[in-house]
Amino acid sequence: MARPPRSPLAPAAFPAIPPVDGVRFATAVAGVRYQGRRDVMLADIVPGAAMAGVFTQSATRAAPVLWCEAALAASTPGPGFAILVNAGNANAFTGQNGLDSTQRLADATAAALDVAPERVFLSSTGVIGEPLPDERIRAVLGDLKAGLSPDGIAAAAEAIMTTDTYPKGAYRGVTLQGVPVTLAGIAKGSGMIAPDMATMLAYVFTDAAVAPDSLQAMTARAAARTFNCITVDSDTSTSDTVLVAATGAVGGDAITATDPRAEALETALTDVMRDLAHQIVRDGEGATKFAEITVRGARTDRSAHRVAMAVANSPLVKTALAGEDPNWGRIVMAIGKAGEPVDRDKIAIAFGNLPVAEAGWVSPHYDEAKAAAYMKQSEIGIDIALGVGPGTATVWTCDLTHAYISINADYRS
Amino acid sequence: MARPPRSPLAPAAFPAIPPVDGVRFATAVAGVRYQGRRDVMLADIVPGAAMAGVFTQSATRAAPVLWCEAALAASTPGPGFAILVNAGNANAFTGQNGLDSTQRLADATAAALDVAPERVFLSSTGVIGEPLPDERIRAVLGDLKAGLSPDGIAAAAEAIMTTDTYPKGAYRGVTLQGVPVTLAGIAKGSGMIAPDMATMLAYVFTDAAVAPDSLQAMTARAAARTFNCITVDSDTSTSDTVLVAATGAVGGDAITATDPRAEALETALTDVMRDLAHQIVRDGEGATKFAEITVRGARTDRSAHRVAMAVANSPLVKTALAGEDPNWGRIVMAIGKAGEPVDRDKIAIAFGNLPVAEAGWVSPHYDEAKAAAYMKQSEIGIDIALGVGPGTATVWTCDLTHAYISINADYRS
Repeated sequence: MARPPRSPLAPAAFPAIPPVDGVRFATAVAGVRYQGRRDVMLADIVPGAAMAGVFTQSATRAAPVLWCEAALAASTPGPGFAILVNAGNANAFTGQNGLDSTQRLADATAAALDVAPERVFLSSTGVIGEPLPDERIRAVLGDLKAGLSPDGIAAAAEAIMTTDTYPKGAYRGVTLQGVPVTLAGIAKGSGMIAPDMATMLAYVFTDAAVAPDSLQAMTARAAARTFNCITVDSDTSTSDTVLVAATGAVGGDAITATDPRAEALETALTDVMRDLAHQIVRDGEGATKFAEITVRGARTDRSAHRVAMAVANSPLVKTALAGEDPNWGRIVMAIGKAGEPVDRDKIAIAFGNLPVAEAGWVSPHYDEAKAAAYMKQSEIGIDIALGVGPGTATVWTCDLTHAYISINADYRS
Repeated sequence: MARPPRSPLAPAAFPAIPPVDGVRFATAVAGVRYQGRRDVMLADIVPGAAMAGVFTQSATRAAPVLWCEAALAASTPGPGFAILVNAGNANAFTGQNGLDSTQRLADATAAALDVAPERVFLSSTGVIGEPLPDERIRAVLGDLKAGLSPDGIAAAAEAIMTTDTYPKGAYRGVTLQGVPVTLAGIAKGSGMIAPDMATMLAYVFTDAAVAPDSLQAMTARAAARTFNCITVDSDTSTSDTVLVAATGAVGGDAITATDPRAEALETALTDVMRDLAHQIVRDGEGATKFAEITVRGARTDRSAHRVAMAVANSPLVKTALAGEDPNWGRIVMAIGKAGEPVDRDKIAIAFGNLPVAEAGWVSPHYDEAKAAAYMKQSEIGIDIALGVGPGTATVWTCDLTHAYISINADYRS
């Protein structure tokens, strides 16, 4: 099928990402499902690296997710790691056949790269319920090994796309006690996006040296503030995976939780993840608007997050965004259905800097013409003040358009 | 605005509903928002009746809902009751102004019908956040009083419509210890449908004599099994209201919980409510498919309900229904995201009588051609067996189509 046109919300271009010392990438055409495009990517990570990950909390997790969870639990610093990802088939709800496929893929990758199978991390994304033709992937492992290059990250971002309209990458440099450190990440995702502890597929690499436990803790916190704060359609994938590899190639002592460098590194890691998370929303199926929803004054941060997600997931709010309608009544409705402690008569709502509602009714400063003009922008800010506590949260969503219906009613995903 | 075409899932005609002894109806053109149509209905209920109700659990409940909750708490058998409903304006998120409007409407209705204001139940449905022009409604109270008739229920069902494409009514007769009893109900609802303890607006009338506490308990149980088991778009209204009036006009002792007649009456009441609930789903905004989703073998009934609603609310499942795509992978996804105890490898799914998935993978009996043909029907049954307990639930939903987007992106609701 022809690739859909690039999202109107897409960034101008894939960012210039320098190599991350200790990581090499390769891509290949395996023909898992798509014809005439690269659909497999391999990342090879040097010995001594630390690996962290967070995964979908779905009760129907796909075979590669189960594989990664076991691999992560068994991982220790020492030999290298590999990440093998295919697009076109999710190897999800495939029973024992799916588990057998993951074992064969890990064994073959391990043999090619001379690491243990349990150090190979696997992801698959695409159609659910069809057997993964893993022999097609195994057949290109030799080519993948031969093609490994420190410069391959942009091609890797292309190879993992499914309904994405553009490849997603992000880069941050940060200097830790005089040592320049690089963080680079790629992601894919467009529909079935309502991550729960993780999002679709995202891989972040850094040459920093980080203790595995600290890397895992940083990854979990960063994912909670980024990938877990986006939604396209409220549907949670069976395959959501975020992996973070720290190669340690810059040298020095590994960063632990109490290290003075930890905060700056976590900030940079969170920035990379937020950048990738925003790119996923901007590529939301059919999206024409990117919306940032901030809730302040909730009882707790958790309560603020729930209210914000109720607004972000509301079909009526999302269709109002599509219609460029400053329909704040639907926002009131969505706040009300969240099931969180609110006082109707203390709620205040603003679109950007435009006051909309306050004290339980429309604001005396509300200007329908200004609000309507504001809604024509492609970037919308919705600010909700609940006035019942100190809790805050920010989440990101997109609008719900005819194109979402066309994409999902017309194609098998 | 022109009324949209009648839903393809609509019943052939409004049912023939006999009068309910003790209830009279009237409708009028108040011009609250719509032009050239009846938009207000009044029901007058004889002295001695019992009243029950369930309401939205939204934290941003509309002023008339707050009024009804207080009125119900204060209600006792004795003088008559009235129900006054307008379409076009929800009097929701209207602050003190909204509460003042309800007081003025109740006072005026009470004066016209010679009952106390707290015996007047009020509902408003339509746009949120605009002041209710209650003076237009008060201006037609004289006409409404003069027009009261036992035969007015069909006109009443028309008058309370907003985006509905057809009026909704249901009728059951039941004989209790030799005494014929009538139950008749009307409802409205089409979008913003994901009721929480209630649904949009529904009014059921019976000439049975029922003790108020028993009527309230029956109403709550029946609503839980009917209106709380439907969804159109997962959005919960600020105005959901179900009122049940039992006039007692058939005479005899009032039915209490331990009365042998109670079970038959509750069954009939549940039947009327389920009929109305189905009619709301069949009029779901843009709907072309009516789907019944049954979950068996869950840990508990509550767990089964949550899994069924996760499937019923999934945009990807609903767009697959619209696309007539037997995409059982999306059902697996929705089961997985529900957050309920399931064992992936015990899940079995059927479309109607067609086995689709079992033992964690596609069924060996799955026939894609038959499944695709089945999905072309306008009534779809999705049967999910979880195999982990005795819990069951059935819910009803519709598909998600381009027309839903058009209706909600193009009009202010």
